[in-house]
Amino acid sequence: MTTPFPADVYAARLDRARALTLEAGLDAIVVGPGPDLAYLLGVEGDTIERLTALVIRAVGEPTVVVPRMELAKVRDTAVGTLGLAVSDWVDGEDPYALVAAAMPAAPARVGVSDALPALHVIPIADRLGVRAELATPVLREGRMIKDAAEIAELRRAGAAIDAVHRRVPGLLRAGRTEREVAADIAAAIVEEGHRTVEFVIVGSGPNGADPHHEVSDRVIRDGEIVVVDIGGAVPAGYNSDSTRTYVVGAPDPEAARRIAALVQAQQAAVDAVRPGVTAEEVDAAARTVLAEAGLGEAFLHRTGHGIGVSVHEEPYIAPGNALPLREGMAFSIEPGIYFPGEWGSRIEDIVVVTADGCERLNLAPHGLTPAGA
Amino acid sequence: MTTPFPADVYAARLDRARALTLEAGLDAIVVGPGPDLAYLLGVEGDTIERLTALVIRAVGEPTVVVPRMELAKVRDTAVGTLGLAVSDWVDGEDPYALVAAAMPAAPARVGVSDALPALHVIPIADRLGVRAELATPVLREGRMIKDAAEIAELRRAGAAIDAVHRRVPGLLRAGRTEREVAADIAAAIVEEGHRTVEFVIVGSGPNGADPHHEVSDRVIRDGEIVVVDIGGAVPAGYNSDSTRTYVVGAPDPEAARRIAALVQAQQAAVDAVRPGVTAEEVDAAARTVLAEAGLGEAFLHRTGHGIGVSVHEEPYIAPGNALPLREGMAFSIEPGIYFPGEWGSRIEDIVVVTADGCERLNLAPHGLTPAGA
Repeated sequence: MTTPFPADVYAARLDRARALTLEAGLDAIVVGPGPDLAYLLGVEGDTIERLTALVIRAVGEPTVVVPRMELAKVRDTAVGTLGLAVSDWVDGEDPYALVAAAMPAAPARVGVSDALPALHVIPIADRLGVRAELATPVLREGRMIKDAAEIAELRRAGAAIDAVHRRVPGLLRAGRTEREVAADIAAAIVEEGHRTVEFVIVGSGPNGADPHHEVSDRVIRDGEIVVVDIGGAVPAGYNSDSTRTYVVGAPDPEAARRIAALVQAQQAAVDAVRPGVTAEEVDAAARTVLAEAGLGEAFLHRTGHGIGVSVHEEPYIAPGNALPLREGMAFSIEPGIYFPGEWGSRIEDIVVVTADGCERLNLAPHGLTPAGA
Repeated sequence: MTTPFPADVYAARLDRARALTLEAGLDAIVVGPGPDLAYLLGVEGDTIERLTALVIRAVGEPTVVVPRMELAKVRDTAVGTLGLAVSDWVDGEDPYALVAAAMPAAPARVGVSDALPALHVIPIADRLGVRAELATPVLREGRMIKDAAEIAELRRAGAAIDAVHRRVPGLLRAGRTEREVAADIAAAIVEEGHRTVEFVIVGSGPNGADPHHEVSDRVIRDGEIVVVDIGGAVPAGYNSDSTRTYVVGAPDPEAARRIAALVQAQQAAVDAVRPGVTAEEVDAAARTVLAEAGLGEAFLHRTGHGIGVSVHEEPYIAPGNALPLREGMAFSIEPGIYFPGEWGSRIEDIVVVTADGCERLNLAPHGLTPAGA
């Protein structure tokens, strides 16, 4: 058995999802491969054209529908240890009939997991004669609130990515390309304890002004500011995600002033986190500091996103999200400032909400960090 | 501009999709990131929680809905060179309102692309007050029939993976683990001209009996049969996918006999390919040879899948698929035989349907191939 946690953890997660399905007034939910299935049963991998799905009924036992050729792999998870009912199928057979058979009779309301693609959502809805709903309210509840074992994994991930950031000043220097630096960082992500590299962003000079720039063959030059946003998954599947801003050589004083304001904005948002505060209030804390520094227009995105078995998940720390924070929620706090054609900066930590504030999981120095030594 | 083909190719693909939307009686289709958007506009990447979508109206101009932070990247594709209308949005705004605004008034029938996740499918359908349909019939038509430039890319991919298979006998030997061999193969996939490694399966001994085994720390032993199924994407985004079966040292004579029958079954399916023959007839050609050799029960899956900008796409060469083959279709022919707890074998080539038969894109030796020299 190759799941990160013992079987009773998955049994509890599954039972909670069942109870929440009932509470939400849904007759059943259909969970496809992706973070929800990894969370509930330790089944990894993405959806393919051959349907794999967990059907959770509000009342009664769950069933796993799986292609026969995936059966061995799926059995080697909590599906096997919990002895769940399995309906397997081979090419040429109709997996949607198996989903229907796993449902209560004539279901009126059926939820589907976020990640399930249209390719399967629409045949399932058509076969059942229902209008599918998002199962998000049922599924996010479990994933959003991390237990002690999950927080330990996120802490492990945070320490691992901090160790990578501490190596970045030695990798980043004038004359190297973003791609060369990124390749070394990717190797360091694995060396420091991740099992996968999920993303490596190295945005030098004007490339740093595009929040979703990844990497290019651009040569880094002396005096440039470089955004490094990196993450990976530790063996248990939990993700790291941390951004720091580096400078190669001596920074422009005005850039240094703006980045100091960004560090204050990031700190203000961290300071705002505690149970009962809403996600949008945390977002506003960062936004207000930047606006007061005359940098409001330069902050193009939300302040953060939840993290766990996926890199982006609920809760989203964004304008308009009135969700109150609760103990055990884990998310990024990553305000950024972007000056198109010139440079950009972002500072990002993962935090976990505690009883009276938060624990910061990333501790590498936050300010503009000298590189190229 | 960084698309693999010139702008007029994308203009023609887009116009064809529009015409097929009209012909299918749909008012519009919504295409999310994934292979369809790569095919239509050269936009790469997967769907994230922030919606990016191309809205194609049956009558009128298309619109691209995109998060502002992705705008620069999306403009650097055919979206920019074709000067398509773009509706951008920032966190806190409602992207589904932009999709609705890009639609004809009160649409009755709306299609969505296969890969669009429930997270977006359901809010779009709810916002429009429609029951979403799959846009597959509209979108598969273009992707399924490859033009000369696409076939050239698939040929390039085929030659690149053949070059890797020719190196496998030197990498595979008793005493190495599957994972060690797979790491060397992954490096060779890139060295031989792929830009990405999509998958590396090394199934030794009993692991070869699981068609979806990937790789493990199992040590390969003398006399064992090893399935190697590998592929990647060449720079233009088109995929390779080829399987060969190797033996380390001297094979068991009965295993060699069965694998010779499998090679005949694969050849029979290749020989069956020509325009007008159905997908299921090609599948049956392989299946019949294996049944006659007493191996029908050992063949657990379909004979093949289409390939192009995705590794698995239409047409599926499977029982029950009455789709007639047409010139320009490209797909795998990969029968396999599996003996649980003992060993397995699979032989896979990509073929392209020609006017009177097919062109085989993988030419590395097909039989049981000696390794460990």
